Formats: sequence, C-alpha cells, structure tokens
Amino acid sequence: MSEWSMRPRPPAESEAVMVEPVMPSDANVLGSAFGGRVMQWIDLVGSIAAQRHCRRPVVTASMDEVHFHAPIRIGHWAVLESRVVAAFRSSMEIDVTVHTEDPLTGDRKLCTSAFMTFVALDAHGKPVAVPPVAPQSDEERQLEQDAHARREARLARKKQLQG
Amino acid sequence: MSEWSMRPRPPAESEAVMVEPVMPSDANVLGSAFGGRVMQWIDLVGSIAAQRHCRRPVVTASMDEVHFHAPIRIGHWAVLESRVVAAFRSSMEIDVTVHTEDPLTGDRKLCTSAFMTFVALDAHGKPVAVPPVAPQSDEERQLEQDAHARREARLARKKQLQG
Amino acid sequence: MSEWSMRPRPPAESEAVMVEPVMPSDANVLGSAFGGRVMQWIDLVGSIAAQRHCRRPVVTASMDEVHFHAPIRIGHWAVLESRVVAAFRSSMEIDVTVHTEDPLTGDRKLCTSAFMTFVALDAHGKPVAVPPVAPQSDEERQLEQDAHARREARLARKKQLQG
Amino acid sequence: MSEWSMRPRPPAESEAVMVEPVMPSDANVLGSAFGGRVMQWIDLVGSIAAQRHCRRPVVTASMDEVHFHAPIRIGHWAVLESRVVAAFRSSMEIDVTVHTEDPLTGDRKLCTSAFMTFVALDAHGKPVAVPPVAPQSDEERQLEQDAHARREARLARKKQLQG
Amino acid sequence: MSEWSMRPRPPAESEAVMVEPVMPSDANVLGSAFGGRVMQWIDLVGSIAAQRHCRRPVVTASMDEVHFHAPIRIGHWAVLESRVVAAFRSSMEIDVTVHTEDPLTGDRKLCTSAFMTFVALDAHGKPVAVPPVAPQSDEERQLEQDAHARREARLARKKQLQG
Amino acid sequence: MSEWSMRPRPPAESEAVMVEPVMPSDANVLGSAFGGRVMQWIDLVGSIAAQRHCRRPVVTASMDEVHFHAPIRIGHWAVLESRVVAAFRSSMEIDVTVHTEDPLTGDRKLCTSAFMTFVALDAHGKPVAVPPVAPQSDEERQLEQDAHARREARLARKKQLQG
Repeated sequence: MSEWSMRPRPPAESEAVMVEPVMPSDANVLGSAFGGRVMQWIDLVGSIAAQRHCRRPVVTASMDEVHFHAPIRIGHWAVLESRVVAAFRSSMEIDVTVHTEDPLTGDRKLCTSAFMTFVALDAHGKPVAVPPVAPQSDEERQLEQDAHARREARLARKKQLQG
Repeated sequence: MSEWSMRPRPPAESEAVMVEPVMPSDANVLGSAFGGRVMQWIDLVGSIAAQRHCRRPVVTASMDEVHFHAPIRIGHWAVLESRVVAAFRSSMEIDVTVHTEDPLTGDRKLCTSAFMTFVALDAHGKPVAVPPVAPQSDEERQLEQDAHARREARLARKKQLQG
Repeated sequence: MSEWSMRPRPPAESEAVMVEPVMPSDANVLGSAFGGRVMQWIDLVGSIAAQRHCRRPVVTASMDEVHFHAPIRIGHWAVLESRVVAAFRSSMEIDVTVHTEDPLTGDRKLCTSAFMTFVALDAHGKPVAVPPVAPQSDEERQLEQDAHARREARLARKKQLQG
Repeated sequence: MSEWSMRPRPPAESEAVMVEPVMPSDANVLGSAFGGRVMQWIDLVGSIAAQRHCRRPVVTASMDEVHFHAPIRIGHWAVLESRVVAAFRSSMEIDVTVHTEDPLTGDRKLCTSAFMTFVALDAHGKPVAVPPVAPQSDEERQLEQDAHARREARLARKKQLQG
Repeated sequence: MSEWSMRPRPPAESEAVMVEPVMPSDANVLGSAFGGRVMQWIDLVGSIAAQRHCRRPVVTASMDEVHFHAPIRIGHWAVLESRVVAAFRSSMEIDVTVHTEDPLTGDRKLCTSAFMTFVALDAHGKPVAVPPVAPQSDEERQLEQDAHARREARLARKKQLQG
Repeated sequence: MSEWSMRPRPPAESEAVMVEPVMPSDANVLGSAFGGRVMQWIDLVGSIAAQRHCRRPVVTASMDEVHFHAPIRIGHWAVLESRVVAAFRSSMEIDVTVHTEDPLTGDRKLCTSAFMTFVALDAHGKPVAVPPVAPQSDEERQLEQDAHARREARLARKKQLQG
C-alpha cells in the first residue's frame, strides 16, 4: 500500500508535539514571547500534523481567529500539540493548542489554541485529494462535524474579504 | 506635552512599513514562505503601529482569521503595511496588509491581510488607557466604526472559547 | 507538596518529544543536516527531560560518544525523544534517540542516540540534590542499572582527560 | 513596456523603508546594536532601492565611509530609508539614512548614513545597463551631480587599494 | 598537482581557528552557553580542518565523549582550535579544543575538548580515500598513533550499539 | 599587573581569526554572500581585535570605505583576519582583511579589506584611554604612521557630514 493511499486515518495518527523554550530573542522587552513567534510555532506544528495525515507537501491556507490568554515568559516553554480533525477534498483542518509550562514547577496554562487549514499539493504544486479522517471517539466525531460548519463560515468570510 | 498624552492620533501617524525579502530559511520545500513566517512579520509590523499610536509597551491580544491568497516565493519580497484603525480603552485594532512584490518586475499581489488587537501596558505590566483615534477620511471613519462591531463579535467568540 | 519534592519519578514523567524540520540553513552542501545541528537539538531535548525530572535549572555535564548512522535530508524531520534513566546525587543520565522521518512516506530510520548527563543547580548556581528515578519496567530497571556502570567509566575517563 | 525598460526613474520610485527593532541578539553587552548588524540592515535596504530602480539582481560593489553618531538601544528601533540618487552604466549610487526611534517617546536621532554602490547583473551574472535617474527637485539634482564626483574619487581610491 | 592529490599533509596544514562571542540567544537562564551550542561550534570548526586536509565535502561520522569543565558566560568568547591528527581510508580524526576567553581580562580556561571523525565524500556522496597525515613532531606522532587505538575502540562500541 | 595596564601591545597580540562558511541564508539569489553579511563579520572580528588590545567593552565608531573585489559563494568560506594597527586616546584603528577560500581547492582570493575604528568604554559607558601600540616591524610602523593621517582625514569628513 502506497504512502499516498486514501485509507482513512484516525486523528491520533497525525498527532505532533513540540516543546519550544522561550529565548530572549523570542521575547519583547516585558520578557514574554512575541505573539508572532507563537504563531510561527503554531504553523510549524500544524504543518507537521497535516503532512503526517496526507504525506504530501502542504501550504497554509488559513488560520482562524486566535486569542492569547496567557503570556509565555523567557525561560518557560511553549508546549504545542496538533492533530488533523477533519479532511475535505484537498484541504485539512488542524487543531493546535499551546500551553505554557514553567520548567521549575511544572505548572501548565493554556496560552492559545487555533484551527488552521492546510492544502495538500502534488509534485506540480496543484491541490491533490487527501485521505478522509476516521474519528475514534465521540469527541473526535464532534470536532469533525463542527469542522464542516467552521469551513462553510470560513469560505463565506473569505469570499467577502476578496469582495 | 508628554509622549503619553491622550491627544487623538490620525491613523497616518501610526503607519509602519516593512519589506522582508524571502530567504531559503523562510520557505518550504516548494519555495514559498511559510505561513507562520508571514504571521510573525504581521505581528511585528502590527506592534510597531500600535506602539507608534500609544507610545507604550504592547502585547498581542488577538489576530482575526487570516487567509493566504497568494504565495510569496524565495527571492520575492513581503511588503507589509500597518496602521491603527480604532482604539478602545487599553487596546487598539490594527489593520495589516501584506503584498508580495517581485523584485524583477515590480508586480504586486495581495498575499493576505489581518486585523490584530494589541493591549498597551504600563511599567508594571498592567493594561493602561490609550489615546483615541482621529479618523481623517470617510474610509477611516468607516474602518473605525466597523472595528467596534468586529470587537463585539471577537469578545463574544473569545468568551465562548474559554467556555 | 513542593515542586522540588524528592518524590521518585518514573522515566515517563520526564519524557520529551521534539520534531525539527531540516531547513537549508541546517544543512551542508550535500543537503544533509550538520552533525553539530543535530547535537544542538539533542542537548535541547535532553535538557527538557532533565528539568522535567528535577524542576531545577540544569547545565550539560557530558555527552557520551555519538555515532551518526543515517543522514537527515533537507525537508525531512528529526524526531527526538528523551527521558531520564538514572539519577545520581545532583546529576541525571538522559537517554536521547534521534530518528529521521520522511514526511512524504512516513519512513523512520535511527539517525543517532546519545547518553547525556546534566547537573541540577540551585538559585546560587551550586549543584543540588535531585529526586531518584522510579523505573517501572524491566527495561527501565536495566537501563538504570547500566547507567551506574556507564557513570563510573565516564568519571574515570574524565579524570584521565584532566590528567 | 518591459520591466527592464530604460525609462528614467525619479528617486522616489526606488524609495524603500524598513523598521528593525533591536533585539538582545543584535546588541553588545552595553545594550546597543552592533555596528555590523546596522551595516547588514543598510546593505539590505540599499539593495531593495537598487532593485526597485533597475528590476535586476544586484550585488554590493562598495560602501563609503560610515560614522556611527548615536547608539541604537535594545528595545528601540532602527528606521532605515534608502533611494537611488544616481545611475552610472551598470551601477547605481544609493543614499541610506538610519535613525534610531524610541518607541516610548517617538524621539528620533540620526544614527548613521551611507552612500553605497550596487551593480546590476543579467541572467548570466554579467553587469548590465541600468536606467538613468530623473531627479525631480534641486536637492535631487545636487545629490546626483555630487554622486559623479564621489564616484571618481571612489574609483581612484579603489585603484590605489588594488595597487 | 591536483587539489585532490594524495600528498601527505602535516597537521598544521589543516588547522582552523574560530572565535565565537556568546550571545544571549546562545545561553541558558543562568547566563552560560548551552552545551549544544558549543557542540555545534565544535562540529563546524572540526569540519573545516577536515576539509582543509582532504579538500572534499565531509560529513560527521562520530564525536567521542565530551565533558564540560567550565561554563562560557554571555559576553565571553569561545575560542575553538582544530586540526587533523590521523587519517584512515576515507575518514579522519580531528582534535578540537575549546577555551573560554574573558574579553576584559584575557583569562583563558579549558572548556572542553573532543575527538571527532569525519568521512570524505566524492561527487556522488560515496566515501573516497583521503591523503595520509604527516606528523612533524613527537607529540603529533603520539597523537596519530593513539588515534588508531581510539578508532578500534570506537568501531567496537559502534558495532555494539547497532546490536 | 592589571588587565587594564597601559603597557604597549604589539599588533600580533590583538590578532583575531574567524572562518565563516557561507550558508544559503547568507546569500542572495545569485548564490553569493550579501555584502551586509560580510560587513557584519568584519565588524565582529574587528571588535575582537580591539578588545584583545584594550580589554574593555568597545563600540564601533566608523568603517572606512569598503570595496568588494570578489564574491564569496555558498559553500565557500570567508576567512577574516584582524589586528590593531594604531591607538589614539580612547579609540583604535583595526585593519581587517577578508579572503574567500574554496574548501575543495584551497584557492584564496582577496574579497575585501577595511579600516575600522572602535572606542573603548569604561563601566559607565564613557570613553576611556587605551594602551599604545608597539609596532614590531617596518610594515607595522608604516601602518601605524599612516593611521594617523587616515584619522585626520576621517575626522575632517565626519565634521563635514555632521555639518
């Protein structure tokens, strides 16, 4: 069976984890990580989940609204987790969560979360079909179902933006 | 008059411009800039506009949904422009647009745009009041008015996310 | 119970995972990641496991001999895993393995593995006692037992080097 | 009309602006940006103006003497502006100025300025003719005229250096 | 005589020197350079000596056990020195030493040292023969002789690791 | 004798050497190192020589005109050498040369050279007296003598620039 088989994949198969220690060069003068740096990490860990699902090159298509609930301080870690929650024709929705972990106490707080979409491309850079998602639990089934509603709203807003 | 005066500022006063050439280390194997790298630049140019408006340290509070309409290739430039379009109590909404410019032809295409919010902080890291925006044209007045609607929707969704 | 309690920790409690895509700036002219870049990642993921075990600042004391069995190509990922396998007075031995994962096929190969030691420091930068390891399986008990032999050989060689 | 037309360009057409926040990794132990980092930014913003003028790949040929009049502190911004002031056969002279801006007060001071020359290259890496400059004001006409004198002195010194 | 001649080279011919100032982004929260950063520099300066000896692309094959004897503080310099001490068929053993130098006093301390091996590759990425080493002093002859013993022990351990 | 003694130092005592492999992220689309990157390395190696002479923190005061005679290609090395050639009250003139070395042939070409000045600072950031230079050869005596003429011309031009 080829790596590009259309076998449905459970979300767990695409899961990716990253730990990023916040360095002085990642942080503003108040000592907390730039929002933009965190978004860069979100995009990276999201793209790894997307590629683990479809085994194709992918490009970022969109990121839903993000809110930063808690700062990540210099010396603390950003712990990022991602997995594919839904697959459409050639695009996938990825759920990314970011916690801050204090290395000296182990305390974790939710920093932010994001729904992203990535598009799979073939060798010519054209969108290509991706395998379906096979949710394994009620929570995963709910996430996938909601993803279709989020997608419709997203496409409507995109259309509006392009006017 | 102090740098922290509450004198209303026209959007033009906070405008910021950046040109970022896309290097191989900014790009995926297909040769186009990572979405996450572009979001990092958006956050940076947004924070400069925010600080030019309020002359305080700022932190990223949120970024509205972003869609990537066109890739930015290695060797091409990301041209980013930002300005404050509305001010609330201690937060500001910034409008950022990103074009791709081909250095060999001068062709420009819209890559993406984003509405971000930043919060101004005092010396103790607490939110602090920011000056009002003084729109100078019908377009700027419209943008400011819409910003208040965007803000209400944003806060409602944030509340929902925190459950 | 304080974060610095001396409660014994199972190796699983200190486990850390990182995925690092190899970028052009990480690689030599033949297109494979520099050994030095891989060692930098090993040190980083090792230090995270060490801190998760002792919840103290740590510094690298040593890295045992490493052999590179397979190159990691540009566009492929380094997948790093680490956990504390033994604790001595103020130092810990960490086991790190590095696999290369091809994003387009999912194929994984062992790139290298390393035993590192880190020393825990208190607020004055002095070595401080760390909690014991509580192995949970025969494999973990064996690893811990071997770690004591590795340590004796290591200290003997270190003494010889300082001659 | 092709992007490589020889139509004369006013200096305003090549203008480029960059804002670079000084990060800890850009600065020495005294907290001010390395001169070398500032020169790197000068070269970058200069190359953008050069390419906006000629729409060709360019390489740095020379930088005239630079003096650093004021340090740029961590947390402050380097604001760089560049434009082509004169065009010779295949080379251009670019005027770059660097101000430091304090984000909390808006105060600007001249940090340094530099006259650079870039050479335009064709697809084979050979020097290629560039369009003339069309100065629009007395100040621009003076700058262009002086550029020819600077060029002669520069070429004489270069000859001397190569002995 | 070609650059790839098999003429024996004295160790002095491959010597390489690097000075790396430790920046905040190279250092942990205690203000000393990450072990992994130092290992990255060791690999780099080692690869330069290896290439100066064989004038071929090289890849890192192994690094013997390293011990960190002294930290390198932010603002201090890592002074790295490397040279080829022995050549086998297609691989070379390189001796690297790292001192820390305090720029304000000139004091130098040994930070660490490492024996590395690199393999020379031809244009197809296959191992290729390298020139012999021509030791010039008793110390160099001793180092070369010991290198053969180190090699045998290393290959035995490698075999054991691969099981 | 203190590290800040005013004992005259021969140029050899301040010599510094660096080898920088050109990576894809250092280079333009034509594959040669950015002039600005080379100037950053020049400033770094120059500052090391300056600090080895005076054992004080230093800041860049000026760089004389630089001409780029030869490009440095990706995969090749920049070999930088610096030494203090003259000392004034609190400033020093440093001579930096940059060669490009082809790792596969050993061929070296002069890329550029630069005379830089650095100012030594005390703990309060104020200029402080530096030790004299003790030239050891006719060539070093000539360089030092010429440095005084270069300095007068430099200060005259600086005055003119600040006009």
